[in-house]
Amino acid sequence: MLGLMQNWPLTVDKIIDHAKDWHGGREVVSRSIEGPIVRTTYAQIHERAKRLSNALLALGVRPGDRVATLAWNTGRHIETWYAIMGIGAVCHTLNPRLFADQLCYIINHAEDKVLFTDLTFLPVLLERRADMPTVKHIVVMTDEAHMGACAIPGALCLEALVAENSADCAWGGFDENTAAGLCYTSGTTGNPKGVLYSHRSNFLHTLVTMGVDVLGISARDTVLPVVPMFHANAWGLAMSGPATGAKLVMPGQKLDGASVHELIVSEGVTFSAAVPTVWQMLLTHLRETKGQVPTLKRVVIGGSAVPEAIVRGFRDEYGVEVTHAWGMTETSPLGTQATPNAAIAGMDAESQLRYQLKQGRPPLAMEMKLTDDEGARLPHDGTTFGKLKVKGPFVVGEYFKGDGGEILDPEGFFDTGDVATIDEHGFMQITDRAKDVIKSGGEWISSIEIENIAVGHPKAALAAVIGAFHPKWDERPVLLVKLEAGVQATKDEFLAFLEGKIAKWWTPDDVVFVDDIPLGATGKIDKKLIRERMKDYVLPTARAKESA
Amino acid sequence: MLGLMQNWPLTVDKIIDHAKDWHGGREVVSRSIEGPIVRTTYAQIHERAKRLSNALLALGVRPGDRVATLAWNTGRHIETWYAIMGIGAVCHTLNPRLFADQLCYIINHAEDKVLFTDLTFLPVLLERRADMPTVKHIVVMTDEAHMGACAIPGALCLEALVAENSADCAWGGFDENTAAGLCYTSGTTGNPKGVLYSHRSNFLHTLVTMGVDVLGISARDTVLPVVPMFHANAWGLAMSGPATGAKLVMPGQKLDGASVHELIVSEGVTFSAAVPTVWQMLLTHLRETKGQVPTLKRVVIGGSAVPEAIVRGFRDEYGVEVTHAWGMTETSPLGTQATPNAAIAGMDAESQLRYQLKQGRPPLAMEMKLTDDEGARLPHDGTTFGKLKVKGPFVVGEYFKGDGGEILDPEGFFDTGDVATIDEHGFMQITDRAKDVIKSGGEWISSIEIENIAVGHPKAALAAVIGAFHPKWDERPVLLVKLEAGVQATKDEFLAFLEGKIAKWWTPDDVVFVDDIPLGATGKIDKKLIRERMKDYVLPTARAKESA
Repeated sequence: MLGLMQNWPLTVDKIIDHAKDWHGGREVVSRSIEGPIVRTTYAQIHERAKRLSNALLALGVRPGDRVATLAWNTGRHIETWYAIMGIGAVCHTLNPRLFADQLCYIINHAEDKVLFTDLTFLPVLLERRADMPTVKHIVVMTDEAHMGACAIPGALCLEALVAENSADCAWGGFDENTAAGLCYTSGTTGNPKGVLYSHRSNFLHTLVTMGVDVLGISARDTVLPVVPMFHANAWGLAMSGPATGAKLVMPGQKLDGASVHELIVSEGVTFSAAVPTVWQMLLTHLRETKGQVPTLKRVVIGGSAVPEAIVRGFRDEYGVEVTHAWGMTETSPLGTQATPNAAIAGMDAESQLRYQLKQGRPPLAMEMKLTDDEGARLPHDGTTFGKLKVKGPFVVGEYFKGDGGEILDPEGFFDTGDVATIDEHGFMQITDRAKDVIKSGGEWISSIEIENIAVGHPKAALAAVIGAFHPKWDERPVLLVKLEAGVQATKDEFLAFLEGKIAKWWTPDDVVFVDDIPLGATGKIDKKLIRERMKDYVLPTARAKESA
Repeated sequence: MLGLMQNWPLTVDKIIDHAKDWHGGREVVSRSIEGPIVRTTYAQIHERAKRLSNALLALGVRPGDRVATLAWNTGRHIETWYAIMGIGAVCHTLNPRLFADQLCYIINHAEDKVLFTDLTFLPVLLERRADMPTVKHIVVMTDEAHMGACAIPGALCLEALVAENSADCAWGGFDENTAAGLCYTSGTTGNPKGVLYSHRSNFLHTLVTMGVDVLGISARDTVLPVVPMFHANAWGLAMSGPATGAKLVMPGQKLDGASVHELIVSEGVTFSAAVPTVWQMLLTHLRETKGQVPTLKRVVIGGSAVPEAIVRGFRDEYGVEVTHAWGMTETSPLGTQATPNAAIAGMDAESQLRYQLKQGRPPLAMEMKLTDDEGARLPHDGTTFGKLKVKGPFVVGEYFKGDGGEILDPEGFFDTGDVATIDEHGFMQITDRAKDVIKSGGEWISSIEIENIAVGHPKAALAAVIGAFHPKWDERPVLLVKLEAGVQATKDEFLAFLEGKIAKWWTPDDVVFVDDIPLGATGKIDKKLIRERMKDYVLPTARAKESA
C-alpha cells in the first residue's frame, strides 16, 4: 500500500523559488571579478537566472546537456547554476586550478556544450579554444564594458544575455533523479572521474546540511563560502544559503587573509567555510594587524585535516567555534562533522579538543562502516583502523560514463579510499589513504601519523612515509625527509625522535634524505610521484634478508 | 539524463538504525503508565522494536495492514511505531480523547488488524470490543505483572511478545512511497478523514524539522515531547529525536504542570513542545511553587494560537524562548514556525513579539499561498486575508479511501480551511477558519478576532462570533457571550467595548447572552454546534429590513 501524500519532486529550482518567495529581499553580496563589491538579492538572482535559462534554451541547450562553469564564487555564478539546473541541463563545475591539459580532458570527457567563464580565465581559454570542440558557446560572466578584454571569437556577454532574454521561463517538472550537476574528482590515480549529481541528491544534501549539527545555518546568518563552488559544490552552501534565507557573501577570487577579513567585518559575517590554508592565512593576518572578527561565530573546516593550532587560535584568541568536517566530491560532499554530542559537550575544553580534531560523525542519511580487506565490519573502538565505506542518497553510485566500473560493495557501500578509526562516540578519524597505508605482516601502519610526527623534528622541512617492499613483512615503512635549508642530520637522529611517539613496530626501516618532496595541485604530498621516483629503491633490511 | 547517485529509499527504519549506530547509548526516559520512571536507550529501543516486528509477523500482519496504537508518549510507544513501520505495515495512531463511537468508527474505517493499547484504555476497549470486528489481536503495552487488570479475552502482553521473539528481523527494502502511518483528522465537519503518511513523507518531514529555523534540535538537546504521538505525530519528535541523537523524555499520561515540571528538572530538559494549555498549566504551577526551569531553553507551541501572556511569561520570568508553530494532521504536521529572520531579529523585543505571535513562515519544501474564493493569488501585505493553501512532499494528496474526493486545486495546493494573512517578512497569521469567516457584502470579517477582543471584557467568561443571514449583506456578525457567574450586562456595554478596537463595519449587528458556549474535544469553540442551536435565529437588522 502506498501513502497518499503529494507527489512533489525534489528539484533544486524549488530552492531558489523558496528564497525568492520567502526571503526575496535578502542580500547576496559579491566581490566582483571586475573589482567592486556588488549587491543583489535572492529575488533578483531568481529573475536573472530565469533570463539566463531562456538564453541557454536559445543557444540550443537541451535537458541533459552539460554546461560548464569556470568561475569564482560570485552572485553571477549562483545565477548561472540555477539557470542551468532549472531547465534540466547539467551544471559542470570546472576547477581552474587544474593544469590546462586536465581541464581540456574533463571538458571533452563531459562534452560540455556551453562554457561560462570569469574574465580571469580568458587567457587559458583563448590558448586552448581549439582543444574543446564540443563547446559551441563561451559566455563571459561580465558586462559589455568589460568584454573588450575578450579576444575569443564569438564569445557572449552574460549581462547582454540577461538583458536580452525574458524572465518568463518554466523550471522543473522533471523526475527528481534527473542529473543536475557534474564534478570531476581530482584523480590522484588515473584520469579524473565525473560524479553526476541528481536534483534529488542535491536537494537531500541541502536538507541534511541545514541540520543544527551539520552546517546549522539559519535565516539570521551571514554566510561567507570561501570554499569554491567548483570544489565539491562549495559544501552545498550555494543551495543551503537560499534554502534557509541566509545572507551570502561571495568572495570572488580574493581568498587571502586581508580580503577575507575585510568581508567578514564589512558584511558582518557570522559563518564561514574553507580549507585549513585559508584559515591559516586569516589567522596570520589577524595577528599581524591586530584585527578582530566580532560577528564571526563559527567556521567549518574541511578538505584536509584541521591542525590543532587553528582550532586553538580561533577558540582562544577570537572566540570562534571551529567545526571540523569531512567529505569528498563523491559524497556531495558532506560526510561527517565533528559537532559534539551531549557526552562530549560535557567534557572539559581540552578533552573536547581531542574530538574536534577528528573528522566526526555522520548525519542521518549517511551510512558509514569500517571494514578489513575482506569486507568484514570492524569495531568502533577508536583504535582499530579499516577501510572507510559510505552509503546514502547523496553518495555516488557509479561514475559518469561508467568510468571505474562497479564501485559499490555487495552491501551497496562506496569505498572512500580512506583508512579510518571510529570511536565509541561514533567519531571517525582518517588515519591514511588506503593506497598509502603500509601493510606490514598483515597489520596496517598509518603513513600520515608517522609523517605528522617526523615533520615536527626541528630540522625537517617536509616528511613523507611510503611502504617499500620487504620479503618477509610484504611492506615496511621508509621515511623521506627534506631538511631545512643548510642543515645536516642523520638517520638515527630521526629514528630517536620517533621513539616513544609511535609503536615500536611502526619504526621506519630506513630514513632517506631528499632534495624535494613533491606536492600535488591541492597541496597534499604527491605519494604517487614519490613512489615512481623510489621504484628502484631497496630497503636495507630487505637487502640484508636477501643476502642472508 | 538521470544522475548517478545511489538509490537509497527514504524509509523510516533507517532513522532508528541511525540512532542505534551513532547514538546507541543515548537515553529515552519515560514516565511509565504503571507509575515509575523507566530508562532505556536507542539501542535497546531498536532491538525491542525488531522483536516486536517479529511478533507482528507471527500474528499475521502483512505489508499494508493497519496496526493501531491507543497510547500515551512512552518508550514502548516509540518501539511499537518502528516495529510496525519497519515491516511495511501502517501505524495508525488513535486519539483516546475521542468519544468511543468516533474511536470505533475510525478503527472500522481503517480496518485495523492489531491494536496496541496502554492500560489506561482497557475499560473502553472491554466495553466496545464487539464493535471493532476487524481487530484480531489486542496487545497491552505492559508487563506480565500488570496484565492481571486486563479482562479482554485473548489480549496479549507486550513484554511477553518482546521476550518471546527474536531480534533478527529485516526492515525496509520497499518503495519509499509505501504507506507508514495513518492519522484521522478531528473532523469538525462530517466524519473524520484519514491522512495516510508515507515513509518518504515522514523522512522528509524529519529532515526539514531538523533545520535550525524549524524545530532545530541537536544531539545535545534533551527533548520532552508533551504533544502526544497520537496528535499529528508528536510534531515529528519521535522521529527527529532519534534522527539527531537527542535524549527523549516521554511524559506518559501526566501532562499537568507539576508532572511536566518534575521531568524538566530531573532530566534536564532543554526543549519541549506542546499546545498552549499545557504551557499555561506549567506557568501557573511554576508561579505557585516558585519553581524554576534552569535547563529549559526553548518551547515550541502549536495546536492553537499562542496567547501573548504565555510568550511574555516564558521570556520575562524564565528566560525561555517561545517558538510559535502551525500545522495540521494534513501537513505531517509542521507547516510554519515563527522563527525570526534577520530583519525581525534586529528589532526591539516588543516589535519582535508581534511576529512571534503570528504562525510564522514556511520552511523549504512547504509551498504556501493565499487566494480569494476564485483561486487568484492575494498579496503578502500583512492585511489582505485569504484562503491558506499549501503544497509539498509531506502535505496530503488525498484522504484514505478517497474520502472527500479531489482535494487539491489546479496548481496542486491543498486548502487548509484556514483564512490567513501573510506579511512582508513572509510571516503567516491565521485570522479564522474559512467556514467561520463572515462574508459581509463580499468582504471578509474574522470571527476569531472579534471573539478574542470580546472575551477580554471583564464580564465575559466566553465569547463566540458567528455569521447570521442578512438579506442585504449576505451575512452579518452576531456576538454570543457567556457571562461570568452572577453578573449582568447589556448589548450596548459589549458594543461600546469593541468600539475603536475593530473596524466599524465589523461591529456585530447583535449581542446574544447565552448560558453555554460549547467546546469541542480539542478545547476549541464548537461553532458547528452553535450554528445548529442558532439556526432559527434572525438578526434584528434583518427583521428590520424584512419589515421595511
